[in-house]
Amino acid sequence: MSRPADTRDRIIRAVLRIIGEHGVAGVTNRRIAKEAGVSLGSVTYHFATQHDLLRESLRSFVAEETRRFTELAAQYRADDVGLAEAGVLVGQVAARTSFDSEHIASFELYIQAGRDPQLRAAADECFAAYDRLAASILSALGVPDAERAASAAVALVTGIQLRRLATGSAADDLVDALLMLVGGPQRPE
Amino acid sequence: MSRPADTRDRIIRAVLRIIGEHGVAGVTNRRIAKEAGVSLGSVTYHFATQHDLLRESLRSFVAEETRRFTELAAQYRADDVGLAEAGVLVGQVAARTSFDSEHIASFELYIQAGRDPQLRAAADECFAAYDRLAASILSALGVPDAERAASAAVALVTGIQLRRLATGSAADDLVDALLMLVGGPQRPE
Repeated sequence: MSRPADTRDRIIRAVLRIIGEHGVAGVTNRRIAKEAGVSLGSVTYHFATQHDLLRESLRSFVAEETRRFTELAAQYRADDVGLAEAGVLVGQVAARTSFDSEHIASFELYIQAGRDPQLRAAADECFAAYDRLAASILSALGVPDAERAASAAVALVTGIQLRRLATGSAADDLVDALLMLVGGPQRPE
Repeated sequence: MSRPADTRDRIIRAVLRIIGEHGVAGVTNRRIAKEAGVSLGSVTYHFATQHDLLRESLRSFVAEETRRFTELAAQYRADDVGLAEAGVLVGQVAARTSFDSEHIASFELYIQAGRDPQLRAAADECFAAYDRLAASILSALGVPDAERAASAAVALVTGIQLRRLATGSAADDLVDALLMLVGGPQRPE
């Protein structure tokens, strides 16, 4: 017997895995129930519509990512690291991120929001959360005009991560790109 | 009666539309034949495998995008515009880009390359083409260290376009972000 919150979470994790592996079109209640190990009735009890399911899955993924990066940011502050070191750390973390099915799913959900206006508000919330996180990290690092640079930094990381996913390339240019954006030290010639 | 090259192109356009609307999982030979208005035999004649079909569709999309932006770059050079004006122009063009099914399809194909290693080389070629284009535009605009900034500019535009697609937001921050990256004029406080 699992608590309702556990069941809900297992359903969401299952949805993210299914989207990551098969795309949004692969999400059916039957497949979710099987993948999550819950009854078909549980799926429809927790999520009345497909929109609810996709929206909550995207929100859940971003909430977890934000929590992970917020912890990381707190660590920077505690360690009182400088901009260049922080850039290197961020780059290392991003480069280590392996693209599991949940990461692939988040990209799929953004694209699905392009087709389905009912998902756009959730996508907007997610990007806004990344913006706040980036602004807080950049500001703690003493980057001038951190608010202005925040959404550009989010776009830069998003774009580089999509390229990494698509090409299997390393992310060794991420740190350099971030430093270029925030006016950090130039790469030696 | 259409020439083989026309048929091939119609098939590719149909594949991009299908992916844009239904995702990669929605691509079947039967649906392509119907959408392109060609025989089922034509589809298998031109593209032996699903990999060929997806790879050539991605290449074709990027080749067309590159052509469009190269023309744009040539125009900048002819008009001898400055960095700020060029940034504004690029931003306006990007902001005007409506996300039709072919644009959505290109994002889907990048994600599919994350699942399917056989697509990665094509994805890599596509990003390299964007890099060369960005380097050529930035260099013509007199941006110092254009090569270094090129792939970061590509990532920035990719990330901002994905956010626009997902949230339906305007791209009014694109110009500002690009100028920040290449060290252009600061936004007035």
